[in-house]
Amino acid sequence: MSSMKILAVEDCGFKRTIKQKQKEALLVGVIITGFRIDQVLFSRIEVDGLDATKKLIDLIISNGEEVELIMLSSISYGGFNLIDPLKLYNVLGVPVIVVNPKKPNSLAVESALFHHFNDWKKRLQIINRVGEPEELDLKKGNKIYYHIFGIEKVQGEKLIRSEICFGKIPEPLRIAKIIAHGIK
Amino acid sequence: MSSMKILAVEDCGFKRTIKQKQKEALLVGVIITGFRIDQVLFSRIEVDGLDATKKLIDLIISNGEEVELIMLSSISYGGFNLIDPLKLYNVLGVPVIVVNPKKPNSLAVESALFHHFNDWKKRLQIINRVGEPEELDLKKGNKIYYHIFGIEKVQGEKLIRSEICFGKIPEPLRIAKIIAHGIK
Repeated sequence: MSSMKILAVEDCGFKRTIKQKQKEALLVGVIITGFRIDQVLFSRIEVDGLDATKKLIDLIISNGEEVELIMLSSISYGGFNLIDPLKLYNVLGVPVIVVNPKKPNSLAVESALFHHFNDWKKRLQIINRVGEPEELDLKKGNKIYYHIFGIEKVQGEKLIRSEICFGKIPEPLRIAKIIAHGIK
Repeated sequence: MSSMKILAVEDCGFKRTIKQKQKEALLVGVIITGFRIDQVLFSRIEVDGLDATKKLIDLIISNGEEVELIMLSSISYGGFNLIDPLKLYNVLGVPVIVVNPKKPNSLAVESALFHHFNDWKKRLQIINRVGEPEELDLKKGNKIYYHIFGIEKVQGEKLIRSEICFGKIPEPLRIAKIIAHGIK
């Protein structure tokens, strides 16, 4: 476990049916230092909107606590509301790691964007800038997929490994997921 | 840190003004084993109602996860909605520890009950059955106040001490408090 102050971000589930979809989803941010949970933050984002990056930046700035690393479980929150990790890094100057236990299916995402969003080009631009994830081999033949912004690859991989305690999800994201799941 | 599966219970804040008070408060339950957060549960209770004991019992039973210890930060949740630790212990067969960093002011509580509740006798009965808390000396001259049901005093005190990592609140309750505070 590193001793960095890490903000891990997850979203709470929301309802989506053919007839109706929930307008807003809840973003959960958990600040953790080593094994210590320091704070839990919440923000509302629009389902399938494009406000998640700004909402997360506002949340971090207004909270005032200086985080040293942001961990995302994906770049899509609340449906296809994309959090742009590069923008987070550029605006906040805080390194960002996106860690996903599953390989993101970029073709499926692109197709969904193209078919359901008028602003698909704008969204695709973010996805393309983020690029393809790196693969990291864990114990027992497990793999995870990650993107790193603002840290060297070797250092980033070491950090990811050090944060994995139970299962294959880094601890801050695992805890954020549990809280988000409970709220759903 | 013990390796017991502990359920710690906190409530989220609610609004109460002279003219108006929120009808419901949210109960947050966090299940923790050692350093690992396993689950976060939620239940709604009536502000100043008397449904918290039943709601907590229902929550634990419906969740199905076998907890080995219940930790409460007080017996009053959502205003004066009392959680009866003896009833929890009798119904669920799970030991209960109430740990409070401040000495509960039972005279003030009794007076508030008498002046604001028609069913003050019923509430006072619970408080009287729970009785006066024990005092436990911590490091640096700190004290906490506790009640134990279903465990021997010596063992209970050892357990409380082992769960205190940061500050003077046992870790499961500290985490439940942080989550509850974030939701408020």
